[in-house]
Amino acid sequence: MEASTASAAIRTVDVIRKKRDGGELSTSEIEHLVRGSTSGEIPDYQIAAWLMAAVLRGLTKAETAALTDAMLHSGEVLDLSEFSARKVDKHSTGGVGDKTSFVVAPIAAAAGLIVPMISGRGLGHTGGTLDKLQSIPGFNVDLTAAELQTVLRSCGCAIIGQTAQLVPADRKMYALRDVTGTIESPHLICASIMSKKLAEEIDGLVLDVKTGSGAFMKRPEDAALLAELMVETGERMGKRVVAVISDMDQPLGRTVGNAVEIEEAVATLKGAGPGDLLQLCLELAGQMLYLGERAASADEGKKLARGLIKSGKALAKFREMITAQGGDASVVDHPEKLPKARYRSEVKSDLRGYVQAIQCEQVGNACVLMGGGRERKEDAVDPAVGLILHKKTGDPVAAGDLLCTIFYNSEERGEPARKIVEQSYRIANAPPKQTRPLIHRIITGPPSASKSSTRAK
Amino acid sequence: MEASTASAAIRTVDVIRKKRDGGELSTSEIEHLVRGSTSGEIPDYQIAAWLMAAVLRGLTKAETAALTDAMLHSGEVLDLSEFSARKVDKHSTGGVGDKTSFVVAPIAAAAGLIVPMISGRGLGHTGGTLDKLQSIPGFNVDLTAAELQTVLRSCGCAIIGQTAQLVPADRKMYALRDVTGTIESPHLICASIMSKKLAEEIDGLVLDVKTGSGAFMKRPEDAALLAELMVETGERMGKRVVAVISDMDQPLGRTVGNAVEIEEAVATLKGAGPGDLLQLCLELAGQMLYLGERAASADEGKKLARGLIKSGKALAKFREMITAQGGDASVVDHPEKLPKARYRSEVKSDLRGYVQAIQCEQVGNACVLMGGGRERKEDAVDPAVGLILHKKTGDPVAAGDLLCTIFYNSEERGEPARKIVEQSYRIANAPPKQTRPLIHRIITGPPSASKSSTRAK
Repeated sequence: MEASTASAAIRTVDVIRKKRDGGELSTSEIEHLVRGSTSGEIPDYQIAAWLMAAVLRGLTKAETAALTDAMLHSGEVLDLSEFSARKVDKHSTGGVGDKTSFVVAPIAAAAGLIVPMISGRGLGHTGGTLDKLQSIPGFNVDLTAAELQTVLRSCGCAIIGQTAQLVPADRKMYALRDVTGTIESPHLICASIMSKKLAEEIDGLVLDVKTGSGAFMKRPEDAALLAELMVETGERMGKRVVAVISDMDQPLGRTVGNAVEIEEAVATLKGAGPGDLLQLCLELAGQMLYLGERAASADEGKKLARGLIKSGKALAKFREMITAQGGDASVVDHPEKLPKARYRSEVKSDLRGYVQAIQCEQVGNACVLMGGGRERKEDAVDPAVGLILHKKTGDPVAAGDLLCTIFYNSEERGEPARKIVEQSYRIANAPPKQTRPLIHRIITGPPSASKSSTRAK
Repeated sequence: MEASTASAAIRTVDVIRKKRDGGELSTSEIEHLVRGSTSGEIPDYQIAAWLMAAVLRGLTKAETAALTDAMLHSGEVLDLSEFSARKVDKHSTGGVGDKTSFVVAPIAAAAGLIVPMISGRGLGHTGGTLDKLQSIPGFNVDLTAAELQTVLRSCGCAIIGQTAQLVPADRKMYALRDVTGTIESPHLICASIMSKKLAEEIDGLVLDVKTGSGAFMKRPEDAALLAELMVETGERMGKRVVAVISDMDQPLGRTVGNAVEIEEAVATLKGAGPGDLLQLCLELAGQMLYLGERAASADEGKKLARGLIKSGKALAKFREMITAQGGDASVVDHPEKLPKARYRSEVKSDLRGYVQAIQCEQVGNACVLMGGGRERKEDAVDPAVGLILHKKTGDPVAAGDLLCTIFYNSEERGEPARKIVEQSYRIANAPPKQTRPLIHRIITGPPSASKSSTRAK
């Protein structure tokens, strides 16, 4: 077995050994790994050994920034220099019922910002932004960089899928991490997320880092660690970054699925959304407007965002975006045009009392089981299935009260999903002793946000 | 990227994650990895990630034994059931000037034991047993299992190279470890050594674990850890195992090379070898005779070994073995028939005083540089080059005294090698404050050596 090396001066095995022994890699050693992995010159088994050493030894902040930078420059980056307005984006670490993108992107664009949002598909128990959008008839998420620019020119915001040209290093490395048990590293997660987001060439980024039973980071301290790492990495690369640590211990809003979540996002843009969803959307949008210098503070941004919902301007933007991306914008006013499931069933409470908790990951799994998400990357997604939660944590319940309605297309999948949801609800006599806040923490960088990039361009 | 699994019930990625998180793998999980690696069903990148997790998290004793057992059974094992005599072997972790195999194998065979010794080639700064033997004209180390049996029938001992049928898992895994920075793990080293030795189907094994500047384990505590692990692993598998931790802070004996080492081993079998080499050979042979039940204790074994040298029976066995393996046994009495180098040069002392230390790894490197060893696996070895140390650690020296004679075949390699040897000697006014013992420790298993194998056969 021969190990080829991407650059003559650096031996891959020496870099692996250095990390194995807890040393700090230089920028050129990290570039060597990323370049060699992407080009295929360094075999996967060497990258896999390095990834495991990185998971177990950790990376320093400087290494994490260097990794992010090397990955970011592994392919093309967007050229949005034609836009004089500030460019911002929002990224979520993933959860159940998270449809904030469809609300905050239009708000920011309505305020005059440019939002070149590149999103992902659902995997595991979480839904995918692109899957949800594709429940809108005709909506096209597979845009080239040039088509993205056309959409941004017409309406200021777009939500598209990853292109093959952007950050090829992450695609390669993520696939390898997925099968080598090296996903769960805050440093590698940070580099993966930040390299993709910074390849959008944005000025500011708001991170929605989820925590709770439906999040990847179950514990708030893990979420905070990742959030701090991402904020610091962004700041090191000269970007303004804010992280909002938000609750994902129960689904966000009342719907989980694809078409049902679009419907709820539209309701929120119309001022008729559920309280928790609205609150988080205003927080995220407020931060975006602040980072995009449309407001003097996040609080001012929040007020501006509220106004843009009230005036209908944000909803109008969403319509424009759907049209610009080839979709049928009439679904905004005629939600009956969205895909509907053939069957529905109901989960009712046997008990009287209060909802103590809703096992959030299980609710996500129930939706995936009905076809609303993916168990494997190749799976197709059913846009019509999903569920509506009528009771959420803390709500009082009478015996016989409706807890949840389930929409499904195949009988053999509906009943098991219903059972899972039923078991996800925990009802007790008294209200929950502790109520979890929706916003756990907000993490910002140091006051002077602008620092030089780690790479000369 | 798809991860195939060798057995349906166990997912490779779950096994990797379990070790990553510090868990203990079951025997069937370890068998899954070894089987999948050997067959190629599990891709190298998954094995590499697991190896790195194993290096950083360690393996328990049970895991190490299970790994050894699974590797041992990855191919054929020798069938030596035709021999009623006990079968023993000796294995060294590698050093400089280590020629004990050529002394102890004939001694054990002369005492009536069977010694089916499977050895390796030199790599790095250490010499290889097979390379040294091949300096004897005609000596054939590439024997099949059947040919090995023929040699054992005729003279009781044989020293041959690894066959393709024995322990294929180790060949595969070692090549991967070499390029993924996962060599340096006592548990993986233990499994690699013990699986190969136990595939010889021996009853007893004496391990010569080297420590000092010329050993892989520089520190005595690392050598002791590896030794204990190997003894325990062997005992768990029902074998009698003893480890001798011996000094490798300076070369063993006075010669380093190939032909020169054979010559020194022959001298030792004739009772005219250097004191340290003889002492270690008697210790190792004494333990072999004890484990092979030819002596009631290792000390008794040592006496027996000494007698077999004195009587000339051990030397006669070595002659028989050379002949049985196709070599010219007349070299034993006519060492001038061994390959000789064209040139020689001398290293003399500029100072008066005592040899404080000889940097042992450097002496090994000097020999490799002249062509006496391998920098890469593909390199050919020059049997004629080498060196003779006239002064060793602790010896008094006068200015102008000869320290070392160097034998070489190419002028551009001779001078740099001479310089390295010159710099390897450290001379000071006073004798060294601390003298290192030749035998640091002897590690044996629990009194009742016989335990059931971890695998039912």
